[in-house]
Amino acid sequence: MTLLMLGPPERARAWLPIFDAAGEELVVGEDAVQDPSAITHLACWTPPADLGRYPNLKAVISTGAGVDQMPALPPGVALTRTLAPGIDAMVRDWVLMATLMLHRDMPRYLEQAALGEWRTHPPRPASAGRVGIMGLGRIGRAAAASLSSLGFDVAGWNRSGHPADNIEVYGHADLAAFLARTDLLICLLPLTNETRGLLGADVFALLPEGAALVHAGRGAQLDMEAMRSALDAGRLRAAMLDVTEPEPLPQSHWAWTDPRVVITPHTAAETDAVEGARHALAVIRATRDGTVIPGLVDKEQGY
Amino acid sequence: MTLLMLGPPERARAWLPIFDAAGEELVVGEDAVQDPSAITHLACWTPPADLGRYPNLKAVISTGAGVDQMPALPPGVALTRTLAPGIDAMVRDWVLMATLMLHRDMPRYLEQAALGEWRTHPPRPASAGRVGIMGLGRIGRAAAASLSSLGFDVAGWNRSGHPADNIEVYGHADLAAFLARTDLLICLLPLTNETRGLLGADVFALLPEGAALVHAGRGAQLDMEAMRSALDAGRLRAAMLDVTEPEPLPQSHWAWTDPRVVITPHTAAETDAVEGARHALAVIRATRDGTVIPGLVDKEQGY
Repeated sequence: MTLLMLGPPERARAWLPIFDAAGEELVVGEDAVQDPSAITHLACWTPPADLGRYPNLKAVISTGAGVDQMPALPPGVALTRTLAPGIDAMVRDWVLMATLMLHRDMPRYLEQAALGEWRTHPPRPASAGRVGIMGLGRIGRAAAASLSSLGFDVAGWNRSGHPADNIEVYGHADLAAFLARTDLLICLLPLTNETRGLLGADVFALLPEGAALVHAGRGAQLDMEAMRSALDAGRLRAAMLDVTEPEPLPQSHWAWTDPRVVITPHTAAETDAVEGARHALAVIRATRDGTVIPGLVDKEQGY
Repeated sequence: MTLLMLGPPERARAWLPIFDAAGEELVVGEDAVQDPSAITHLACWTPPADLGRYPNLKAVISTGAGVDQMPALPPGVALTRTLAPGIDAMVRDWVLMATLMLHRDMPRYLEQAALGEWRTHPPRPASAGRVGIMGLGRIGRAAAASLSSLGFDVAGWNRSGHPADNIEVYGHADLAAFLARTDLLICLLPLTNETRGLLGADVFALLPEGAALVHAGRGAQLDMEAMRSALDAGRLRAAMLDVTEPEPLPQSHWAWTDPRVVITPHTAAETDAVEGARHALAVIRATRDGTVIPGLVDKEQGY
């Protein structure tokens, strides 16, 4: 089996010795492919247009945690997303930072600081914050555990409504009840047909007055104009976004300079090259052994 | 025994029913004192100038966690600072927020956002952050536990060098070694003659290049001009301050608008009135029973 890797040179430098040590074949870049029929695995963010060139392709590995950027793959080609503990922990840390910043009024203090204004607002204990996490995959559960340990009142919402460790979980049909009890809304959902545009007027209207939004899902889940209206109406008091639509967000976009919105440029996490290479090796081994491919995506569900 | 309380009306409203329920005497404000010789306890941020008016005073209770604002008290009058679990947790949360903000480059992202600039810098895993906590009292230990649980490499520095749970502790004499291994320096020290001005040129010179400062001790511990020089020289890359000297920081102070410095107006914590009243009751009971007064301050050490 041979893996074709497309990506920046830093990644190639990290992957080559790891594949060498494991005794697996790695080809870097399409130009280096001598026998397309030898390629069984492709690791990339987005694949080349003509996948038909690789008749024996068995799996495409997304080098990120998401797969929403992937086009439909030919039948029989598996799709997998990189599982890397480092990604989970980095997104959890960003979410924890963003949640604390909103709970502790940082957008307001940043606005005051720009004016040299020393004015305090009563600090809130964590126990006064009702966190609601949309999406309870590995990252959502890690964020829930950290926020619970600080004393936040944490609940979650997911498709199944299956229970998670020590937090209240609302199922798909109980979205209204979940939102009504949430004043710090965190989105960690994958982008699918069902979640596209989900963070819009209907959802904001169900939140309590003065709620705050932490968004680390995907930009296309958020209707920025609906968010602006919710901010103007006081339904939302502030938001922290690590993802936008489009990315990069244009320099002239109103959200950059709105004091109620803090934006970071999709920097919550970055796949560590070594962890990515290890994931790719695990996919190759699973293909060879006929076991379940790690990070396998259900193409129907989209994650 | 009778306690005289000086403070805002909200506090009086919270304390009165709690003292009533406990069957203890509470007088609010000096104007309401009918018999000064009946006053055995005084709860206040700063005492009135003429404490000689209260010949039977046994203890002064600082309504905050610190006592550096207190003048010298007459011999025989004990000094205690309010112990309230809520304060500890709120300061810990602010410290956690500030540490994550510095570790994850928030000052730089805020500066970019003001210009509408979408530019990423490699996110750092928590394990790449070497946190050094000055002051390992209740708050310092709580911050150490939370930061360790996220994966930060945490060490502490205190007078005794006594070990604390699972973190490396440097003693008084090992300040240079402590600073050399610290790239996220957190100050939670009480203000004493020894800590006044401690965060100055000498300390900054011992930090590694590009370190960051989280300051939630007392403003007078930090030499702001030395901090500015360290920022200009690249020794420090950023700082988050919840305390300044003086407070309020004047509107024209350079630090308000320096993008490398984020200031909150001494808002890391606020004593919950109910917790404060419970502490005061515990002090009265300990005085009556002759047991150790909770929060008792060693006047020599100053904390």
